[in-house]
Amino acid sequence: MYRTHTCGELRIENAGETVTLAGWVQTVRKFGAITFVDLRDRYGITQLLFGEILNDQLEANPLGREFVLQVKGKVSERSNKNKNIPTGDIEIAVDEFKILNKSAVPPFTIQDDTDGGDDLRMKYRYLDLRRNAVKKNLELRYAVNRSARNYLHENGFYDIETPFLIKSTPEGARDFVVPSRMNPGEFYALPQSPQTFKQLLMVSGYDRYYQIVKCFRDEDLRADRQPEFTQIDCEMAFVEQEDILNMFEGLAKRIFEDVKGIDYTDAVERMTWEDAMWNYGNDKPDIRFEMKIANLKKPSSVYVNKTAGNALIDNANFVVFDSAETVVAIAAPGCSEYTRKQTDELTEWVKRPQIGMKGLAFIKCNTDGSYKSSIDKFYNGERLKAIADAAGAKAGDLVLILAGNEERTRKAMSELRLEMAKRLGLRKDNEFKLLWVLDFPLFEYDEEGNRWVARHHPFTSPKPQDIEVMINNNPAIEDAARYLDHPYANIKANAYDIVLNGNEIGGGSIRIFQRELQEKMFAALGMSKEEAQHKFGFLLGAFEYGAPPHGGIAFGFDRLCAILGGSESIRDFIAFPKNNSGRDVMIDAPSTIDDKQLEELQIKLDV
Amino acid sequence: MYRTHTCGELRIENAGETVTLAGWVQTVRKFGAITFVDLRDRYGITQLLFGEILNDQLEANPLGREFVLQVKGKVSERSNKNKNIPTGDIEIAVDEFKILNKSAVPPFTIQDDTDGGDDLRMKYRYLDLRRNAVKKNLELRYAVNRSARNYLHENGFYDIETPFLIKSTPEGARDFVVPSRMNPGEFYALPQSPQTFKQLLMVSGYDRYYQIVKCFRDEDLRADRQPEFTQIDCEMAFVEQEDILNMFEGLAKRIFEDVKGIDYTDAVERMTWEDAMWNYGNDKPDIRFEMKIANLKKPSSVYVNKTAGNALIDNANFVVFDSAETVVAIAAPGCSEYTRKQTDELTEWVKRPQIGMKGLAFIKCNTDGSYKSSIDKFYNGERLKAIADAAGAKAGDLVLILAGNEERTRKAMSELRLEMAKRLGLRKDNEFKLLWVLDFPLFEYDEEGNRWVARHHPFTSPKPQDIEVMINNNPAIEDAARYLDHPYANIKANAYDIVLNGNEIGGGSIRIFQRELQEKMFAALGMSKEEAQHKFGFLLGAFEYGAPPHGGIAFGFDRLCAILGGSESIRDFIAFPKNNSGRDVMIDAPSTIDDKQLEELQIKLDV
Repeated sequence: MYRTHTCGELRIENAGETVTLAGWVQTVRKFGAITFVDLRDRYGITQLLFGEILNDQLEANPLGREFVLQVKGKVSERSNKNKNIPTGDIEIAVDEFKILNKSAVPPFTIQDDTDGGDDLRMKYRYLDLRRNAVKKNLELRYAVNRSARNYLHENGFYDIETPFLIKSTPEGARDFVVPSRMNPGEFYALPQSPQTFKQLLMVSGYDRYYQIVKCFRDEDLRADRQPEFTQIDCEMAFVEQEDILNMFEGLAKRIFEDVKGIDYTDAVERMTWEDAMWNYGNDKPDIRFEMKIANLKKPSSVYVNKTAGNALIDNANFVVFDSAETVVAIAAPGCSEYTRKQTDELTEWVKRPQIGMKGLAFIKCNTDGSYKSSIDKFYNGERLKAIADAAGAKAGDLVLILAGNEERTRKAMSELRLEMAKRLGLRKDNEFKLLWVLDFPLFEYDEEGNRWVARHHPFTSPKPQDIEVMINNNPAIEDAARYLDHPYANIKANAYDIVLNGNEIGGGSIRIFQRELQEKMFAALGMSKEEAQHKFGFLLGAFEYGAPPHGGIAFGFDRLCAILGGSESIRDFIAFPKNNSGRDVMIDAPSTIDDKQLEELQIKLDV
Repeated sequence: MYRTHTCGELRIENAGETVTLAGWVQTVRKFGAITFVDLRDRYGITQLLFGEILNDQLEANPLGREFVLQVKGKVSERSNKNKNIPTGDIEIAVDEFKILNKSAVPPFTIQDDTDGGDDLRMKYRYLDLRRNAVKKNLELRYAVNRSARNYLHENGFYDIETPFLIKSTPEGARDFVVPSRMNPGEFYALPQSPQTFKQLLMVSGYDRYYQIVKCFRDEDLRADRQPEFTQIDCEMAFVEQEDILNMFEGLAKRIFEDVKGIDYTDAVERMTWEDAMWNYGNDKPDIRFEMKIANLKKPSSVYVNKTAGNALIDNANFVVFDSAETVVAIAAPGCSEYTRKQTDELTEWVKRPQIGMKGLAFIKCNTDGSYKSSIDKFYNGERLKAIADAAGAKAGDLVLILAGNEERTRKAMSELRLEMAKRLGLRKDNEFKLLWVLDFPLFEYDEEGNRWVARHHPFTSPKPQDIEVMINNNPAIEDAARYLDHPYANIKANAYDIVLNGNEIGGGSIRIFQRELQEKMFAALGMSKEEAQHKFGFLLGAFEYGAPPHGGIAFGFDRLCAILGGSESIRDFIAFPKNNSGRDVMIDAPSTIDDKQLEELQIKLDV
């Protein structure tokens, strides 16, 4: 037996016991004839005391950092207690020791603040994983995993495994494919999600399904994307949207409770996609703070339920606002005393290519009730007050105004809002605020391909009131410029995203479950009958044999963990992540394969 | 809301309540003006009663099997109670109904004894999955999954996800490979197991790891193999074999308890590989029954610890036995009165090509104490008795004797033993008997390749006493025929299999954790230093930075479920299995992919 106890286990009550421990040498400190060693394992750190009698042996077998050590000795009360660690009251007076394995000097320090750069840490990921910071992340990940499984189990969900070797689909432009040795010339695809299989399980009557499952997407990687990623994938039968929202905000709350010790009793806010875009400029607003966007101009037809006049800004001969499609404002609380340097810096910030605005107007709402503005040549105090009031500004606030093309301006204002909140400390790591965003558009128009594409995926159901609109209208439009007037442009989906602190952590929809409507959807997306049958014949077939109404959701497990762990990067929460080129630099994959392997697969390189 | 209750939930206590149910129409029966419908969902079946008043509506909307139906009505006590189902005391007097979806007539009956053949059921797997028999299997699978996770959690294991897109290795002749769009000409491989990653996690100090994880092998499929299969994959640091055996027989026992309600209190038997081969002719003996093999001849040098003389059979001028490498016998209990027809049939059975023996000798141990034998021309009663005694035969038993080439004969006797046990009803579905098989040979000799191969895998450690043998001897042998005399032939591995009712359900080993020994192992397997570095440099590197002693095990999850469910076929326990050609006939995968996809991947077909 290598150990009787772990390095996190012994307490003052164990004093006098003879124990065997094994672990890694964290530090070696010599005080005269005595040597102290901190021995580390997953469970903690225990101090070892090597007395003078062992000095000869220590000299013959010197200990180094990260050596694997086994010791036998007696638990003793420490004279110099360490209150910072649970084992700090005791130490082991070592009688015997054995070096189980040596260690070369690690290429970077195994500490929270390591001196290792990203590349080096990824190459030696097995050492990076020893660092407490990374260990805590993976422990959190497992806690989320366990919490989710418990909740779903208690609510009658079955974990049912769906296949990894499936079929490439038209939505599968980014499919990873796998040549089949037994079926030369043919390929499997790795799933981007178990979507159709979980729907089939509903058709089969399994009622409640879940999986914590790897999914794959072969696309250019941004910093926060991985070619393989994990979803908490769920589906329920005989449900309406309301049932899904209740069940899965329950899941999120349970995870907060189990993992963060947070009792999230507030009702989860709900917001339509239109409101989110209108008030926050994006479909995953961070609602830990207010700073809603004031719309100062009449909206485009996308915002069917919104009205806004131009009264606040027109008739001022200010050509920038007059010629802009969109003019929007926010109030930054307590910023009225920003210096010229500070407002200039903000202006430069919005002019960066990532944001792409031409400039920034502002109104200082001074504490004495007066208004000072970069546009007071065009607007008098009364008008400035009216604009500031529309943005919800109070005395002491700074109103920031952007103008320009609708889509870009709205997006820029969303970014500016988040940036200001960050600078003002309003985005707190330990505050968590959930939000449902509902009623997404069902379609988006792909101007390049001149066709409708599914915003979510082609299995998403339209809102009940829009089903007739979809069935009774032909998707074709003669003129791409007029797509906004097509009835399809305003069809809303029975879809929902769950947003945490400004990040989409999950999304789903009530699905189409009737063959006719599903065929109409495929047709709307420009798929021929033959193509639909070839790619999704099994699903259309399944819908003919008593498919129940159903819907589901998938949580992005990596991102959820990252947010709960207070990090921006999902990579920190994955044991063996890939880099931005999709490479695992530790094992050096992908790599070339033998000609013999290619031959057996009956494929050739064409590089 | 689609339902207030499930179809398995209502009891006599609910009588008088107005409820809404939704589910599938299992049966429709008309009695005069009344229509009875059995409504089915995952949770059970509830009887619906449609009174005369609904007849017009039913005529306008006739119900058929597998229609999806929603009804609202009152829970009433049944006059004609059905004691076989939990809801059998009540029925729903239907007030309103709505057909949520229709169903075409299914291509086979959705019943335990379906009329659907294998191919049809696989094509319409979503309907097959509705059958109670299949549903029970997947429920059992989930119960095993849940039980294993709970046990491993309680024992401090973390579920840590390892990557699916890894690197092809030399042991990877059967790797599935995945071309990378971002790295043209290079390929990932899908893991045959997370072996090296779980070892790295031990090096990283995670101490106890597990995963229930898909693995992949692109090989010719036997009836009980799948290209993608699931393992319960586990690894522990600072353990010896004894720790592993205790931990994982505990897991097996917990699964018996949770899933089958069996309190498995017996100690789990342990047997060396040599004993298993010697006494049962195979390395995964079914020990629910005895029928040990008697060895009547001196063994080959593989059986270093075994001795057997030829005294019982020699000097009889029986050339078949004299010329045979191996002569083995078993006693079939209570079969002494087999007719000539029965023994002839058994003889034919062993002569089938799958078994490949030339004949079968037998000794009837008559109840009157006399012996009758097919070989009594060569052996008198006294000698027959001596042979029968060696096989442990009692009066009334039938001794069966095979002779021939060692390997084939031993294997044939193992098959014959299982066959006789089956015929005699000794292999009971509801009896479960675990067995550890220990001390496997570390190497096997590949005569074709003229080299040693790892019997388990190249990370398996030799038994401590054999490490010196391995390090101090050169693997090279001049003459393949003399490999049995090479010191490597008798090196035993620190490896163990766990066997349930004659099936290997898991296997593992204590791993090599020293770089020097791992390099020696790669060299022993004929790998050059460069090749070892190229393929496994990351692991060799990891061993330099304080690798702890560690070991693990992987359970074949599909097979474990099948055995617990009393089935021979793992396919029955997989939601969406592939057929013997590796095809998913439901979705029709694998399939051809677009030229555009091939182009982007920069590969060409070479079919």
